[in-house]
Amino acid sequence: MALVVQKYGGTSVGSIEKIKTVARRVIETQEEGNQMVVVLSAMAGQTDGLIQLARELTDDPDDRELDVLMATGEQVSVALFAMAIKSMGHDARSLLGFQAGIHTSHLYGKARIQEIETGRIKKDLEKNRIVTVAGFQGLDDHGDITTLGRGGSDTTAVALAASLKADVCEIFTDVDGIYTTDPGICPRARKMDSISYDEMLEMASLGAKVLEIRSVEFAKKFGVPIHVRSSYNRERGTMVVAETKDMEKVLVSGVAYNKNEARITIRKVPDQPGIAASLFESIFKSGIIVDMIVQNTSEDGLTDLTFTVPKVDFFRTMKSVKEVADKIGAEKVLGDQDVSKVSIIGVGMRNHAGVAQKMFKALAKENINIMMISTSEIKVSCLIEEKYTELAVRVLHNAFGLDDDQEEKGQ
Amino acid sequence: MALVVQKYGGTSVGSIEKIKTVARRVIETQEEGNQMVVVLSAMAGQTDGLIQLARELTDDPDDRELDVLMATGEQVSVALFAMAIKSMGHDARSLLGFQAGIHTSHLYGKARIQEIETGRIKKDLEKNRIVTVAGFQGLDDHGDITTLGRGGSDTTAVALAASLKADVCEIFTDVDGIYTTDPGICPRARKMDSISYDEMLEMASLGAKVLEIRSVEFAKKFGVPIHVRSSYNRERGTMVVAETKDMEKVLVSGVAYNKNEARITIRKVPDQPGIAASLFESIFKSGIIVDMIVQNTSEDGLTDLTFTVPKVDFFRTMKSVKEVADKIGAEKVLGDQDVSKVSIIGVGMRNHAGVAQKMFKALAKENINIMMISTSEIKVSCLIEEKYTELAVRVLHNAFGLDDDQEEKGQ
Repeated sequence: MALVVQKYGGTSVGSIEKIKTVARRVIETQEEGNQMVVVLSAMAGQTDGLIQLARELTDDPDDRELDVLMATGEQVSVALFAMAIKSMGHDARSLLGFQAGIHTSHLYGKARIQEIETGRIKKDLEKNRIVTVAGFQGLDDHGDITTLGRGGSDTTAVALAASLKADVCEIFTDVDGIYTTDPGICPRARKMDSISYDEMLEMASLGAKVLEIRSVEFAKKFGVPIHVRSSYNRERGTMVVAETKDMEKVLVSGVAYNKNEARITIRKVPDQPGIAASLFESIFKSGIIVDMIVQNTSEDGLTDLTFTVPKVDFFRTMKSVKEVADKIGAEKVLGDQDVSKVSIIGVGMRNHAGVAQKMFKALAKENINIMMISTSEIKVSCLIEEKYTELAVRVLHNAFGLDDDQEEKGQ
Repeated sequence: MALVVQKYGGTSVGSIEKIKTVARRVIETQEEGNQMVVVLSAMAGQTDGLIQLARELTDDPDDRELDVLMATGEQVSVALFAMAIKSMGHDARSLLGFQAGIHTSHLYGKARIQEIETGRIKKDLEKNRIVTVAGFQGLDDHGDITTLGRGGSDTTAVALAASLKADVCEIFTDVDGIYTTDPGICPRARKMDSISYDEMLEMASLGAKVLEIRSVEFAKKFGVPIHVRSSYNRERGTMVVAETKDMEKVLVSGVAYNKNEARITIRKVPDQPGIAASLFESIFKSGIIVDMIVQNTSEDGLTDLTFTVPKVDFFRTMKSVKEVADKIGAEKVLGDQDVSKVSIIGVGMRNHAGVAQKMFKALAKENINIMMISTSEIKVSCLIEEKYTELAVRVLHNAFGLDDDQEEKGQ
């Protein structure tokens, strides 16, 4: 008997009919001889409706109360889902975050799961119940409701799979797996059979939206195999698993892009110890995530510092950076929102030289200028003008031999 | 500094604008030097919307999951309300049933509050926070969410007032107090300044819908003064308080009626010990509340047994009574839904004879036939034909000197 954790997103439970469809699928999987834990998101549209309600009230809703409000979305889903299972003659129990023993940090809206007390879930599983857990939510050590932020239900599912030592964590979504790149802009993208945690982490953090990054971190840490698959069919999707020897044979597994970054440059910063620290301190404090950071070599004791932040945080960051720049006597602060980042990812590049070089050449051939570069062991990212994003993705996909042999995806 | 518990119903918080209005009123009361605990119902319409969602799914939604679903209604209200308070520059915290320490029995949909651990609320009050508690919900000793049934938020408010030893529990509603009878059918009804718990209990159980009966029981048990007043103005409403000497001077304080009962008669029941018990056992087991019960004196070892149940339970009761009647060899079972109950209530009648007599005479004068009679220390109820309800109420209101001197209410 295997223990299966399944997670269904908002679209999959977006209507009463869809909830019934998912319920039948879960029952089938149970009847194949599995113990079932099902994690659900809020019904599609619910979350936005709740946010709008809060915005009608105030431009700046209180973080703590926003989490209390948002948590009702998943509560509605799990209650309806457990009702559906019961109406089909099977046993189910809905559990909210606090009932499922999900302890989190207390950063409202972006809390992290710290521990899961699985006692109650295990008892329900022993009674052959389909345990239905509200995704996205938990309880902090003050006894306050927290939410995990965008994609939080993935994290809930993987964390539960890890704590329960589940055999697999199946993430059901509206795509049928993970692709070598976005099929929407590259028709020759291919579905991958499997991908390593590290590659997936890079893909996710670079803007591939299938899996939330923290869920992959969790999966990697605890060795939980994730199966990303479609709610609409029974096909095998993509397995996200630990790295294998075979994976290393492929130089580049995928091409990712991210249009949600903005670039900020501080010109002529006095190049002294502690300057960068004071510059970034206020940014970090506001919880803004700085992605790429480049510092040029110093000239006349002055240096240029460039970094990227999410577009949504651009104006906030500019404001706080300008204040600090004034204080430390930097020349000026420049901002640019029309940028995007394209990246190639692959565990294979660890053992191969020349991958970055090949990337730069492919982009140069199309006259795409590179503004910033950052690299890790298994990826190379280039910041380029936003308008070239799609072209760059297709060029790189082809240059690294990822193109599907078929003329069009799926034919 | 007084501690005030206020409860606002679904209509009072039925829109974002109304939530803001209530928030301002609460802040004003706090600024007058009071500590504030606010209990809210779900926004008007929400509860019905949730029920409809469940019904779309199944005709017979699971009780446990229905409570999980319903509890989101109050969760939305308290989150939005606390946001509103915060956006106005004051401090507030929303607390759900489990966070407010509200422990209940585990009869889903009809749970009873057993204990309130007020530690968290007290801490928040000490910090001068407006503590906002979700009405209608609690947690049972299995850690499951329960709801308290219709009018449950009143009970939450009074139970909190009792546990916190609040100075007053203010119940805000869309009427401006408690009337000597329903002004809708008797234009000469008068608003009462005060009414005793016992009278209110009889009024509530007899169908006056202003206060939920369990909330009055709680208030009586712990001596919590309740102030029933209007959300729409600042006028004093009606105080529900312990009995005073003055109250006894009034023979009848109010006239109540209830059209929601149905009468069932079992003819020629063998008059043996245990027969009544077996008849009512199955009814009690299904949680149906039997109100009036009358058994005639026996003749030839056979007796007639008549009782009333809520109209909504009529068919269910008839079915189960017929089965038992067959078994015990009763002649037949008769049912009548076209009945209604009118009652006069007053602590004054304890010390006065002839009150019932006066009631019967007043009804007889209008040719209203009395089908059943039941009495308690402070009330007399008569079951009559439903079509005479309004006439009976007006006649009794006048006969016991309750009519307003003015031609019409409010003139």
